[in-house]
Amino acid sequence: MKDCIFCKIVNNEIPAHVVYEDADFLAFLDIRPESAGHSLIIPKKHYRWVWDVPNIGDYFEAAQQIALAQRKAFGVDKIVSKIVGEEIQHAHVWLIPDRDNAKGDRNDFEGNKKALLEALEK
Amino acid sequence: MKDCIFCKIVNNEIPAHVVYEDADFLAFLDIRPESAGHSLIIPKKHYRWVWDVPNIGDYFEAAQQIALAQRKAFGVDKIVSKIVGEEIQHAHVWLIPDRDNAKGDRNDFEGNKKALLEALEK
Repeated sequence: MKDCIFCKIVNNEIPAHVVYEDADFLAFLDIRPESAGHSLIIPKKHYRWVWDVPNIGDYFEAAQQIALAQRKAFGVDKIVSKIVGEEIQHAHVWLIPDRDNAKGDRNDFEGNKKALLEALEK
Repeated sequence: MKDCIFCKIVNNEIPAHVVYEDADFLAFLDIRPESAGHSLIIPKKHYRWVWDVPNIGDYFEAAQQIALAQRKAFGVDKIVSKIVGEEIQHAHVWLIPDRDNAKGDRNDFEGNKKALLEALEK
């Protein structure tokens, strides 16, 4: 969709620290992270709300992969998720490693991306 | 699991306003609702975290059905979801109709259950 920042990330018009990609979904680090590895996962196609995504099962299977990798990469069990959707009007799911215990500097985007990609490969 | 309040709801040892049930998942109204129709969906089997549920795709397909029914029943597009998990140590997903706009008295449990069940049947 025109003027949608997340569509621009999908189309490589805006850079992002991408940590996961499959045919339908893309995940990247949040630019204002609450903890190390705080990520968003979005459908590549523009939908207004998460609940509008037809293959929502695939969406959360991908989210689960990222959450399990965040646990390994940042040494926590608790991964908080929030689905709100008013800031950017393109469906997105936040995945936030435990703010009190996640290891690492939340603003070390390159290091956190690398740690997450390594954990996803395991 | 012994002493788990959500396992007791699954086993009918504690009453709840159940709004959805399938082979693996159960949804019911939150006893401290933030808005009309505020629900929780849980796996019937005890898992500590949402991310531990093996059939997470099925889990969110069920959550989507409830969210779409909440939209119809309470007249809102926005359904907020939160996954935290520290209060009760049994995986659960909150589904909260837009607090500013959801129609209905949040404490009318019988009425909200009825409205949600009717919307789920459509």
